Amino acid sequence: MSDLKLVGKQYQNHKSVVHIGSEKIGAKDICLIAGPCAVESEEQLDAIAKGLSELGVKFIRGGAYKPRTSPYAFQGLKKEGLKMLKNASQKYGVKIVTEVLDTTLIEEVYPYADILQVGSRNAKNYAFLKELGKIDKPILLKRGMSSTVQEWLLAAEYILMGGNNQVILCERGIRTFDTSVRNTMDIAAIPLVKELSHLPVIADPSQGTGKRSLVTPMSLAAIAAGADGLMIEVHNEPEEALSDGFQSMYLNTMGEMIESLRAQAQHSGRSLNLTKEEISA
Amino acid sequence: MSDLKLVGKQYQNHKSVVHIGSEKIGAKDICLIAGPCAVESEEQLDAIAKGLSELGVKFIRGGAYKPRTSPYAFQGLKKEGLKMLKNASQKYGVKIVTEVLDTTLIEEVYPYADILQVGSRNAKNYAFLKELGKIDKPILLKRGMSSTVQEWLLAAEYILMGGNNQVILCERGIRTFDTSVRNTMDIAAIPLVKELSHLPVIADPSQGTGKRSLVTPMSLAAIAAGADGLMIEVHNEPEEALSDGFQSMYLNTMGEMIESLRAQAQHSGRSLNLTKEEISA
Amino acid sequence: MSDLKLVGKQYQNHKSVVHIGSEKIGAKDICLIAGPCAVESEEQLDAIAKGLSELGVKFIRGGAYKPRTSPYAFQGLKKEGLKMLKNASQKYGVKIVTEVLDTTLIEEVYPYADILQVGSRNAKNYAFLKELGKIDKPILLKRGMSSTVQEWLLAAEYILMGGNNQVILCERGIRTFDTSVRNTMDIAAIPLVKELSHLPVIADPSQGTGKRSLVTPMSLAAIAAGADGLMIEVHNEPEEALSDGFQSMYLNTMGEMIESLRAQAQHSGRSLNLTKEEISA
Amino acid sequence: MSDLKLVGKQYQNHKSVVHIGSEKIGAKDICLIAGPCAVESEEQLDAIAKGLSELGVKFIRGGAYKPRTSPYAFQGLKKEGLKMLKNASQKYGVKIVTEVLDTTLIEEVYPYADILQVGSRNAKNYAFLKELGKIDKPILLKRGMSSTVQEWLLAAEYILMGGNNQVILCERGIRTFDTSVRNTMDIAAIPLVKELSHLPVIADPSQGTGKRSLVTPMSLAAIAAGADGLMIEVHNEPEEALSDGFQSMYLNTMGEMIESLRAQAQHSGRSLNLTKEEISA
Repeated sequence: MSDLKLVGKQYQNHKSVVHIGSEKIGAKDICLIAGPCAVESEEQLDAIAKGLSELGVKFIRGGAYKPRTSPYAFQGLKKEGLKMLKNASQKYGVKIVTEVLDTTLIEEVYPYADILQVGSRNAKNYAFLKELGKIDKPILLKRGMSSTVQEWLLAAEYILMGGNNQVILCERGIRTFDTSVRNTMDIAAIPLVKELSHLPVIADPSQGTGKRSLVTPMSLAAIAAGADGLMIEVHNEPEEALSDGFQSMYLNTMGEMIESLRAQAQHSGRSLNLTKEEISA
Repeated sequence: MSDLKLVGKQYQNHKSVVHIGSEKIGAKDICLIAGPCAVESEEQLDAIAKGLSELGVKFIRGGAYKPRTSPYAFQGLKKEGLKMLKNASQKYGVKIVTEVLDTTLIEEVYPYADILQVGSRNAKNYAFLKELGKIDKPILLKRGMSSTVQEWLLAAEYILMGGNNQVILCERGIRTFDTSVRNTMDIAAIPLVKELSHLPVIADPSQGTGKRSLVTPMSLAAIAAGADGLMIEVHNEPEEALSDGFQSMYLNTMGEMIESLRAQAQHSGRSLNLTKEEISA
Repeated sequence: MSDLKLVGKQYQNHKSVVHIGSEKIGAKDICLIAGPCAVESEEQLDAIAKGLSELGVKFIRGGAYKPRTSPYAFQGLKKEGLKMLKNASQKYGVKIVTEVLDTTLIEEVYPYADILQVGSRNAKNYAFLKELGKIDKPILLKRGMSSTVQEWLLAAEYILMGGNNQVILCERGIRTFDTSVRNTMDIAAIPLVKELSHLPVIADPSQGTGKRSLVTPMSLAAIAAGADGLMIEVHNEPEEALSDGFQSMYLNTMGEMIESLRAQAQHSGRSLNLTKEEISA
Repeated sequence: MSDLKLVGKQYQNHKSVVHIGSEKIGAKDICLIAGPCAVESEEQLDAIAKGLSELGVKFIRGGAYKPRTSPYAFQGLKKEGLKMLKNASQKYGVKIVTEVLDTTLIEEVYPYADILQVGSRNAKNYAFLKELGKIDKPILLKRGMSSTVQEWLLAAEYILMGGNNQVILCERGIRTFDTSVRNTMDIAAIPLVKELSHLPVIADPSQGTGKRSLVTPMSLAAIAAGADGLMIEVHNEPEEALSDGFQSMYLNTMGEMIESLRAQAQHSGRSLNLTKEEISA
C-alpha cells in the first residue's frame, strides 16, 4: 500500500481530527449522525430534527438528492430539500450532513452542508473526488459496495491530494452472495483502517444491514471495534418513508438506543458527543 | 423488472440498432472495437491505428482520461490524447470510442468521440447518466463491477429516459472471490440481456479476464453466446504499456485472432464488420 | 501453484484422456452427459434414457442420492434409484454418471456407476477425496461454489495423489452477488484450467445458470472456449420434476439442441461423441 | 424459512442451552474456547493448555485432523493428536473441542472430544450432518464460507432432525471479493441468527479475519453484538506454528485479552465463563 502517501500512517502517525465548527470527529468523542434517508417535507424533517436535537444529537443527515437504482423511484426534493435542511440547522442548532451526487452539484450543495457526503456509488468516481479535494468543507467518504479497503483508502488519497484533508471514512457494508441482509457489514474494516490510516472512520449500520432490528447490535459492535462515530437512519414514520423505511429506526425509540450507545462508548473509553443539556440529563 | 420501461422487450420487441455514421452495432454484423487501454503518444497510437485499420478494424478504442485506482498512476494524456485520437480517426478513416469520466468532461470529449464510453466505476453515477441522456451520440455503457443485470439495465434506462436511445451495453466481468483472474466474465449475462432488452450487447474479454491468453477463447465464447460485438485491448508493445499491458493482445498477432473471430461469427450466423478491402482479402 | 505436482502441466504436458470402457473423455470428441437432476421413478428414467439414447447420447446422468439444502426436500430414491440407473444402462447401452455423497456410500454406489460424481458441496471434503483416490473408476469433480481455480485443482490433486488419475473437472458456476441467475458460470475457468492442467474439463450450464433458456447459448460458449464436454439436465416433464425442473431442458427439444452443439463442436475442430447410428443420420 | 422446523424460534422461543458436563453454552455466561489451530506435539499442546487453564479457560481447541487446501500441507497428527488432547484434558481439567472430518472418523474422534467441530468445508455435507444427528455429544457447526444464514441454519436442522439438539453455531467469516483480510467476518449474522433461531451462536475471529491484530477488536464486537462465546486461536510460538500462525494470539498476551473480553461481557450483561480461581483473582 505504498500509494497511501497522505492517508497512510507513515505520513502521520497520530489520528486526524476533522473539525466542523466547534465540533470534532476523530477525537475522544464518538459522533452520532442521525436523520432520515431522504428529506421528504418540511413537516417530516422538522419533526425528526426537533426530536433528535432534544435527544442531544448534533449532526442531522438527510438526502436532498437521492441516487436511486430505478429512474422511476423518488429522486429527492433537490434544492427545496437543501433549504429545508438549512432551516432545520438554524432552528435547532444542528450540523447538516448531505450527499453530493456529482461535480456539477458541488457548488449548489456547498452552502447548505456542513459535511458533504460521497455515496457508495461514487466511491470510484475519481474526477469527482479530485474536485472535492479543492473545497474547504469536510467530506464523508462512504466505502464503495465493492471496494477493497485499499481501494477505499486510495479514494480518500485522491481527496487529500487535492488539498482537503478533512475526510471521514464511513463503512456501510459490502456486496456479497448473502441476501439475508442488504449488505454485509465489514466490521473488521474499522480496526483495519485504523491500523493503516490516521483518518477517522465511522459506521453506517442502517445501510450496512438494511434491517431495523440489527441496527442497535451493529452500532454497539462498531463502537466496540473502535469506530469514531455512527450514522443512523431515523424516521418519524418509517412505514410511510419514501425510501428505505424498513431500515430506519423509529424516532420515539431513539432515546433508548442512545442510552445504550452512550454506555458502550463509555465502556470503550470514549464518550458520545451529545449537547450539554442532554449530557447533564 | 417493471421499471425497464424503455429498455425492456415489452417496449420494443425487435433489436435496436445503434448507428455511428454509416456503421451499425446491433444488426447482423458483429462489431470489433480494438486499441490500446490508454493513448500514450502520437507514435504509439499511430502504429496501433495503422495496424488495426489495415486489418479492417473500423472502431478504435483508447483512453485519454484514465480512471485509476491510485492517484499516482498514469491518469491519461487528456486533451492531447483526444487530439491524437482525432488525428488517427481522420488519417485511417476509423471511428473513435473513448471514455468520459464525468459530467464536466462531456463537452470536451464530445467532438472527438464517435461513441462515448461510460466506465464500470460510473455504472451507478446516475447524475452523469442523466446528462448522457441529453446528447446525440451513442453511449457504450459498461456494466458495473458489482452491478446485477437488472441494475445495469436500469442504468441504461436512465440514459434512454433522457432521450438518447443509442446505447450499447458492454459486459466486462464482475468482481468475485476468485483472484485467479482479474474479473469473472459473466458470459451468461449476454443471452440474459438479450432476453430482457432490445439493446445491443458486446463483450470486453480484456478487462473481463485481465489475462492475454484468455482473450481469444473468451471472445469466441462471447460470440457463440450471442454477443453483438467485442472490445479488445491491443498494444504494439504490451510490455511497455503504461496501463494494463498484461491483458493487451500483441498487434502483430491480431490478424490471426481476427480470422478466428470471423470464422466463429460466420458459424453463429453473423459476420464480422470489417472494411471491404479486408473482407475481399 | 507449486503444489499442482500431479495435476499440473509441469507433470504432464499432453492432455489426459479418461477412459470409460471404450469411451474417452478429453480426446478429440466432446462428450455429452445428459439426464434428469434426480432419478424419480422407473418410468421417468426409462423415458429419458430411451429418448436420449435414440439421439445418440452415450452418458446418462441422474442423482440417486441428492444433497438438498433443506432436509425436508426430496433426498433421492437411494439404492432403488441406483438400480433404475443400472437397468437403463443395460437396456440402452449407456454409461452412468451419478453422485456419491460420502465416503460411506462409495462402496454402495461403485457397482452402479461408470463415473462417480463429486458434487459442489463436497469440493473441499478432503477426507472423501482421499478415499476416491483409491478406487479404479473415473471421478467427475465439480468445482466448489466458492472454490478458486487453484483450490479446485488442488482438490483434484488429492484424488490423483491417492493413485486415481481418472479425473474429469466440471465447471458448474460460482456463487456471486448477482441473483439474476442461480450461479455465475465462469467460462474463463475452462481455458485457464487447460493452461494449468492436463486434466479434461467439462461444463454444466444447467447448474451453471439455473435457467433453461440460457443452457443452449452457454453450452455453445463452453465449447467455443475449449470445453471437453457438457453435462445437461434433461427431463421428460420439467414442470413435474421433483428437483430443479426450471433448469431442465425438454426431452423433445434435445434433438435440435444436439444439432447446434454438434455444429459448434465441428466448427471448433472437435466432434460430438454420439453413437454411430446418430452420426450417420 | 418455513423449513426451520426444529431450529427456528417458532419451534422453541427460549434460548437453547448446550450442556457439556457441568458447563453450559448459551446461558448467561459467555464461553471462551481457545487453543492452537493444530495439535503439533505433546510439548506444544501442554504449554498452551497449561497457560490457558491457568488463565481460567475451560475449553481447549486443537485440530488433530486438519483439512488443508493443499494435500502437501501438514494434515495433522491424527490419532496421536487426539491422545494428546485427552492427556491435556485430564491433566488440566479442560474440555476438548476438535474437528471431525468425515463420517468414517466420528467413531474415532468421539471418545476424545467433548464437543465435535464441523468445519466450514463440511457445512453442506448433508450425509455427514445426518450422522452427527445420531450421536449424543454437542456439535459446533461452523458456517460455510459461502453459506447464507438460511443455509447455515438448515445445516443445523439436519443435525437436530437426527435427534441431536446440542448444536452450537459458529460464525467464522465468509468469502468475499476483499482480499485485505482472509475472510469477511459477518458480525450481523450473530443478531440475525438470534432472531431466527434458539440455538447458541459463537464467533471465531481468528479464522474470521486471519490477522492477529484484528482478533481482539472483533472479539469485543462479537460480544457487543450478542455472541454467546468466542473461539480463539492461541499459540505459544505463533512464528513456528505448522498452520495459521499469523492469526494466532500469543499465549503470553492472553491474560490481557481475557481482561478486556471479561469487561465487555459484563458491560453487555453477561459474564465470561472462567474457572472460579480466575474469577476471584
